[in-house]
Amino acid sequence: MSKKAVIILSGGLDSTVSLYTVKNEGIEIVGVLSFDYGQKHKKELEYAKKTCELLQLNHRIIDLQCLNPLLESSLTRQNLDIPEGNYKEESMKQTVVPNRNMIMISIAAGWAISLKADYVVIGVHQGDHFIYPDCRSIFINQLNKAIEICDWHMVRLLTPVINLDKTTIVKLGIEEKVPFENTWTCYKGKELACGKCGSCQERLEAFKNNNIKDPISYEN
Amino acid sequence: MSKKAVIILSGGLDSTVSLYTVKNEGIEIVGVLSFDYGQKHKKELEYAKKTCELLQLNHRIIDLQCLNPLLESSLTRQNLDIPEGNYKEESMKQTVVPNRNMIMISIAAGWAISLKADYVVIGVHQGDHFIYPDCRSIFINQLNKAIEICDWHMVRLLTPVINLDKTTIVKLGIEEKVPFENTWTCYKGKELACGKCGSCQERLEAFKNNNIKDPISYEN
Repeated sequence: MSKKAVIILSGGLDSTVSLYTVKNEGIEIVGVLSFDYGQKHKKELEYAKKTCELLQLNHRIIDLQCLNPLLESSLTRQNLDIPEGNYKEESMKQTVVPNRNMIMISIAAGWAISLKADYVVIGVHQGDHFIYPDCRSIFINQLNKAIEICDWHMVRLLTPVINLDKTTIVKLGIEEKVPFENTWTCYKGKELACGKCGSCQERLEAFKNNNIKDPISYEN
Repeated sequence: MSKKAVIILSGGLDSTVSLYTVKNEGIEIVGVLSFDYGQKHKKELEYAKKTCELLQLNHRIIDLQCLNPLLESSLTRQNLDIPEGNYKEESMKQTVVPNRNMIMISIAAGWAISLKADYVVIGVHQGDHFIYPDCRSIFINQLNKAIEICDWHMVRLLTPVINLDKTTIVKLGIEEKVPFENTWTCYKGKELACGKCGSCQERLEAFKNNNIKDPISYEN
């Protein structure tokens, strides 16, 4: 009998590549969760929807905007600007949403337990820089130990891209035949990707390093 | 400078006793979180409110009912009855809400990080029986290790009553001068406490063991 998984899908590159990777390995995707936490790049949710429609998956978008007043971040606050420039800069730390990954993972684990699934899949990657403390494998490993004993039914975390950098994630996506046009990365969430924020710059560099053109459109 | 804490307050005995204990130790309570997750005993939230008004605390009730369809439990489903009788019985396992504590703790930790608090306080107690897997200290200890590294600002879990049984929690409440009339325990959540569900029976026994009268009213 094939293993079952619930996956957290933001609609971005990392989670979409994770989804295709796990699915192609023969794991049955019994549920897909996306979260609206008031992110400025809410547009990514449309892309999550596209992927789930294409693959005919059981998709739920959970509205967590009620948490927004509790969690300080430039990713969600209208009065704070998204910083431009390279991801490695200190200023990107403003975009951390406190404990976002644990909040999303704990909800996904609860659903996975109800569905008697074996795994919760999340597309976190620690990259070669540490801006997001809750993307580090040291954190994910520790959280996994708690998840494994949170219920009488055992669920484990699967993080297919955690040790990959963005270039390698795009490479994996090419191998797994991911339709990259169904992914959204820009933090600004306007009609077209800005091409300037840390998130866009990292994506563009990853495609360039793989010698392929990013199929999405950019401003300019 | 005094330490700061965010506390999860259900309005029940355990969390209310935890709140008074921590407060009386001189820890500043900077935020109190209660959750509406579609529990049938929603009445407990009114009691959480009473306590926060009395102590003039910053109280937020978070509506998580959107998660209800994902999490199978007789505590939240209208078509499933709350079992009666002793807590130790197998049937009480129906009342487990999958991963409820991790979901609540992760949100409280996010808020604690935003407020630069030192602790998240939760009134879990493992008792002398294991119905709720996410009340066991083995789980809480593991989760604490993840919480400590989920952000650049360090937050820790505090669980003042985890190793106490219900009788000792009531004893502690007497010492800490907890107004027990401001706590709600019954899982049925009608006008008066039923006195019959596992939760009521355990409370009644704890007061009896302390030779004091429970100040709340019961049916019959």
